[in-house]
Amino acid sequence: MTRVLRGGIDLGGTKIQAVVIDDEHNVRGQARRRTPTQGGPRAVAEEIAGATREAALAAGVGSSELIGVGVGSPGEIDDVAGTVSEAGNLPAWQGTYELGPVVAELVGTQVRLENDVRVATDAEARLGAGRPYHSLLGVFWGTGIGGALILEGRPWLGQDAAGEIGHTVVQHAGGRQCPCGRRGCLEAYAGRGAMEARARKLHRGGQKTKLFKLMKKRGRDRLTSGVWARALGKNDKLAIELIDDAVDALGAGIASAVNLLDVEAVIIGGGLGVRLGRRYARRIETAMRPHLFAKDHRPAVHVAALGDLGGAIGAALLVSAQEAQ
Amino acid sequence: MTRVLRGGIDLGGTKIQAVVIDDEHNVRGQARRRTPTQGGPRAVAEEIAGATREAALAAGVGSSELIGVGVGSPGEIDDVAGTVSEAGNLPAWQGTYELGPVVAELVGTQVRLENDVRVATDAEARLGAGRPYHSLLGVFWGTGIGGALILEGRPWLGQDAAGEIGHTVVQHAGGRQCPCGRRGCLEAYAGRGAMEARARKLHRGGQKTKLFKLMKKRGRDRLTSGVWARALGKNDKLAIELIDDAVDALGAGIASAVNLLDVEAVIIGGGLGVRLGRRYARRIETAMRPHLFAKDHRPAVHVAALGDLGGAIGAALLVSAQEAQ
Repeated sequence: MTRVLRGGIDLGGTKIQAVVIDDEHNVRGQARRRTPTQGGPRAVAEEIAGATREAALAAGVGSSELIGVGVGSPGEIDDVAGTVSEAGNLPAWQGTYELGPVVAELVGTQVRLENDVRVATDAEARLGAGRPYHSLLGVFWGTGIGGALILEGRPWLGQDAAGEIGHTVVQHAGGRQCPCGRRGCLEAYAGRGAMEARARKLHRGGQKTKLFKLMKKRGRDRLTSGVWARALGKNDKLAIELIDDAVDALGAGIASAVNLLDVEAVIIGGGLGVRLGRRYARRIETAMRPHLFAKDHRPAVHVAALGDLGGAIGAALLVSAQEAQ
Repeated sequence: MTRVLRGGIDLGGTKIQAVVIDDEHNVRGQARRRTPTQGGPRAVAEEIAGATREAALAAGVGSSELIGVGVGSPGEIDDVAGTVSEAGNLPAWQGTYELGPVVAELVGTQVRLENDVRVATDAEARLGAGRPYHSLLGVFWGTGIGGALILEGRPWLGQDAAGEIGHTVVQHAGGRQCPCGRRGCLEAYAGRGAMEARARKLHRGGQKTKLFKLMKKRGRDRLTSGVWARALGKNDKLAIELIDDAVDALGAGIASAVNLLDVEAVIIGGGLGVRLGRRYARRIETAMRPHLFAKDHRPAVHVAALGDLGGAIGAALLVSAQEAQ
């Protein structure tokens, strides 16, 4: 009997995380690379292939020996055509690109695509913090605010666009500008992208902050989750203020979703969610409380248990052994 | 073969609507009474029984010949115990009252209880404007803002408290006080109760309005949907201003729910929703538009097709012929 190994890729705005997992969902190899900011979709496809080969090598195989590779990607996914469109959070991604076929060619095995937030939520529901629950809301606190729903044990996709909790209107009058172009969305207050834009603006306006010094010290050109965590640890006033705003908005937006759906649990993932961890999940839970309608029960609130690797593991689960035969 | 007739009651904050329907859901009799504001739950139970007898008489039978009576009620329902609790929108309703057994005794047939918004949504999904859709959100714009969900053709109840779209947070910072005690809820802007409280306050503060003259002229002590409709018809500035606020908030709150769930349709019912009708449903749809995330499809927005009787018809559907045997 040969081992059945699957590859999984979590394609994010700042990093590409690759894993190779076995039949029992053990991680047998992993690799991480920066998401290219130049060279467009082709450069991203090549970096995905490189990370996949590296993770496969760590698992002791060539990438073509994987039964397939799943890719969780932002943007609009067409798994049949293998294309990714509207991936606004990926640098230099314009129009529609046949990511699936190009990566398949480079790694020498089949490729499956799905929305990044959905695969990460599915992984948490099947293998992570969501295992005890039949209904849950996954909230991915990163560059943007992603969301996905599991209802009665299965993903709820609506007409294929469900889960956009980041565009819950938390301030319908006089709301902040959201990177999506709308106003008052949750993401306008809590998305790392919107928070960075606001931090830059306030800093230019004269507000003191260590955020950008910490960013440079770490050799970054963006405020990563690590930079935010470090600034909070140093009691940086602006970082505390912006994270407080984000927690308040997350509390309101998630509570609204719970009032509507009455799910059993909320799983907080994403770069910032995982990095800031349990203490901030508790703070979000506290911020939800004044807005929750049902008095006799509250949803459980957990940090994503698969942490940073959840998205890549969930992507690997897209590949079924049957299809590979 | 004898006719199988069911009774249905829509118990509201201002009125009790009774219907008697046959096997084909034709309305064979109906009656309407004011919800008693004095005498507590017992007086409400007696008025329900009186309305049921009157509707049965119109259908040519005694109330005990009905195979059962369904009651759609606000508050927390325990259908097994037959109790209604926490019915804040019912005048003088305190604690838990055994509405089911008391009404059953008075009308001489079995009584079933369910949440008023759920039965009305179920009726619209099965017999009304929701028939073409597998997934929909019912929004009931009345004294409060009620909501209920149909997902994959079946009611989604969550852990039994789902649907509270009225307590979606549409203004998380500096939001208006909601009758529920929280701040910034949709209901604080769009519930008829909250709108009346605001109108009274602004009127006392010197703002001119025809609302209260129209109320007295109609012999009412509350701003009913009819009073609001009349005031809008007369271009009353304060009425227009408050209804505009309500439409904006409904647009934001409903769009947030659609962004999360991507349902096929939204059905607008309730006293104000039905009274203001298609023109205002179109206005709500327009107010939703700037907040909707999916670009390639929008939900259909309809006024509840069963109108004022939907709640009572839905309540009658609670009674199944099998149980009566």
